[in-house]
Amino acid sequence: MPTVKRSPLAPKGFPVVNDVDGVRVAVAQTGMKYKDRPDLLLVTFDKGTQVAGVYTRSKCPSAPIDWCKSALAKSGGYGRALLVNAGNANAFTGQLGLDAVNATVDALSTLVGCRPCEILLASTGVIGEPMDAGVICGALPKMIERPQPSDWKIAAGAILTTDTFEKAASKTVMIDQQPITITGIAKGSGMIAPDMATMLGFVFTDADIPAALLTSTLKHVCDRTFNSITVDSDTSTSDTVLLYATGKRKFETAINSHEDPRLAVFASAVESVCRDLAQQIIRDGEGATKFISITVTGAEDDSAARRTALSIANSPLVKTAIAGEDANWGRIVMAVGKSGEAADRDALKIAIGGQAVASKGQVLASYDEALATQHMQGDDIVIEVDTGVGKGSSTVWTCDLTHGYISINADYRS
Amino acid sequence: MPTVKRSPLAPKGFPVVNDVDGVRVAVAQTGMKYKDRPDLLLVTFDKGTQVAGVYTRSKCPSAPIDWCKSALAKSGGYGRALLVNAGNANAFTGQLGLDAVNATVDALSTLVGCRPCEILLASTGVIGEPMDAGVICGALPKMIERPQPSDWKIAAGAILTTDTFEKAASKTVMIDQQPITITGIAKGSGMIAPDMATMLGFVFTDADIPAALLTSTLKHVCDRTFNSITVDSDTSTSDTVLLYATGKRKFETAINSHEDPRLAVFASAVESVCRDLAQQIIRDGEGATKFISITVTGAEDDSAARRTALSIANSPLVKTAIAGEDANWGRIVMAVGKSGEAADRDALKIAIGGQAVASKGQVLASYDEALATQHMQGDDIVIEVDTGVGKGSSTVWTCDLTHGYISINADYRS
Repeated sequence: MPTVKRSPLAPKGFPVVNDVDGVRVAVAQTGMKYKDRPDLLLVTFDKGTQVAGVYTRSKCPSAPIDWCKSALAKSGGYGRALLVNAGNANAFTGQLGLDAVNATVDALSTLVGCRPCEILLASTGVIGEPMDAGVICGALPKMIERPQPSDWKIAAGAILTTDTFEKAASKTVMIDQQPITITGIAKGSGMIAPDMATMLGFVFTDADIPAALLTSTLKHVCDRTFNSITVDSDTSTSDTVLLYATGKRKFETAINSHEDPRLAVFASAVESVCRDLAQQIIRDGEGATKFISITVTGAEDDSAARRTALSIANSPLVKTAIAGEDANWGRIVMAVGKSGEAADRDALKIAIGGQAVASKGQVLASYDEALATQHMQGDDIVIEVDTGVGKGSSTVWTCDLTHGYISINADYRS
Repeated sequence: MPTVKRSPLAPKGFPVVNDVDGVRVAVAQTGMKYKDRPDLLLVTFDKGTQVAGVYTRSKCPSAPIDWCKSALAKSGGYGRALLVNAGNANAFTGQLGLDAVNATVDALSTLVGCRPCEILLASTGVIGEPMDAGVICGALPKMIERPQPSDWKIAAGAILTTDTFEKAASKTVMIDQQPITITGIAKGSGMIAPDMATMLGFVFTDADIPAALLTSTLKHVCDRTFNSITVDSDTSTSDTVLLYATGKRKFETAINSHEDPRLAVFASAVESVCRDLAQQIIRDGEGATKFISITVTGAEDDSAARRTALSIANSPLVKTAIAGEDANWGRIVMAVGKSGEAADRDALKIAIGGQAVASKGQVLASYDEALATQHMQGDDIVIEVDTGVGKGSSTVWTCDLTHGYISINADYRS
């Protein structure tokens, strides 16, 4: 779908994606911004489908974010349709933005035959431009006529903005001797790029899991996946991750406790799908030429480890050093120091590409810079840091900061 | 002194700098890293000189930072000499770093004839390389022989690393009918760049102000000047600002209370010098082509305003938009939203170059984008944001993010 050059870090092709019983997709082309591709995705769900959401922490959220939060509270966690448009974020659009949301929800709930609160919306694109709900509503009747269970590549393509490839992941896991399918799609490549982008993730399963457990599962999983990636430290007004469960696969006895060991199996599979999607977003990072994994151990707790790892991942000096294939571990020390988290300078350990670089506050005599440089010349960079104060750990993923990022975000005027 | 091209935002020339009674400077060339310029600065002070320091908040500070903190506590705020070297930061150097500090302090205190704790040190340059104290100690005897009161340009040049021009500022203010001189020098252009940089600021006055009042004054001033600038959000292991007062100008009655109105006059003059130096650092920001002032009003308090302003100033998407001369106010909304500080989206006001852009959660009908673009094409960009929740305000200064920054930090290997 995208017309720009595919990211050098992109997977070879579109993955094998399993259909999810009770989920159907349809796309349309509104021409709102993109003239030559579908830009509207409708996902419809059988009755009884439950849903959980995690949203941007931005204090200036878009109108669809406000809607999703209130609708989900009202519906008690039930959902019948999800509508996503690309090209206009409907953010910072004031009363006009609310009007557009209401008009769209009214039209779609009538067509689906459900309560308005069972409709969720997500928008990605330009901030601050009023959205024309008319063109969206006009496209709905045809979309609702013949949704398909299997058009995942087309669905993943319709929600893209500056992305260079469609992102999907799928996994099947056995619970109570029956196969449970989890399939997700996502988009994102910078946090808001040439005036747009945003991270969206939509995950669907046929398992029978109540909304309350979906919610706790999704929060836990997002912290370890979508909230553990960063391209440029910027946060969109519109980030949304939704997890839908159609309940088509009933269990011998219902899962209704956080302690149920089957929930852990389910959560682990959801995490695997979300990690795959999150890493694909990094692999499509604006201007990215290196995929970087940063693991911090020895922190006060897991949250402290994540903040330190993100401090390294967001450091322009670390990211440019990696772009330059320079094993500049001094900049890693700097980024650990500025994170604000507890760290014992004189117990700090750093490894690059599996090779120990520094220990006890100074570089190791055994450190082989040529070997480190060889690692930096590859596509996949691995950085490990032990801050020496506790047992917390976390892994985050990011990409390098290159001339390509500047070109995408500065050279072309919006 | 610097051999690279002078920043396009640099002042026309070196400013007029007033000498400070009781302060003398000397430089030397150690060849430690730079082969063709002075790289060592010695500043000596008459007996009775008092001093205050503010340092990096990094959890991995350099050996000289550790030394300054403990020495100042021991000396009771008295200082007789300051030694600054450029080329090696003596950071993350473990026991070897401490040894180098001790050797240097021992040699210099013997030459000056003072207690070791009256010697302060600052180092800027590569992180993680052991420092050769021998070459520094070897240069000291000649430096101590004939220090000059007036070599400010040479002094300002000896402490530079990737800077493209010498930074100094000077001001005279009348207190008790006598002229009080405040003169400062500084260096910095990225937080740590090609393996180095760091922000250093040294301010000298002939006023008679006790160390305790110097300390509170310097903390207040730093928050509003050196701590209100950002090039790339990265924080050095070695940032140091020192304020020395020789006490040559006695007042009719001593200043010894925080409430003394003469202290406010003094603090305001120190702030003026530090603001000038801080802005010069931004004007020398790596790759900078635009000087950007960001004022946030209507925040919960001044600290919240500063954090929101820094969130805008550090946003790669805001900085690249400005590099592209794009009046992309949607990215400003994004950066306000992600700051984590309270903001009322529906009361948010944004102005660019003095022109109101957005109000009440949406763009104004009166907004003239051509006018905003014209402002963006200038060198000095002014952004004002009112977050609509309180009375806190703050101004920070930054520069744009350009291909030049990437080239300096990624293209050339260390």
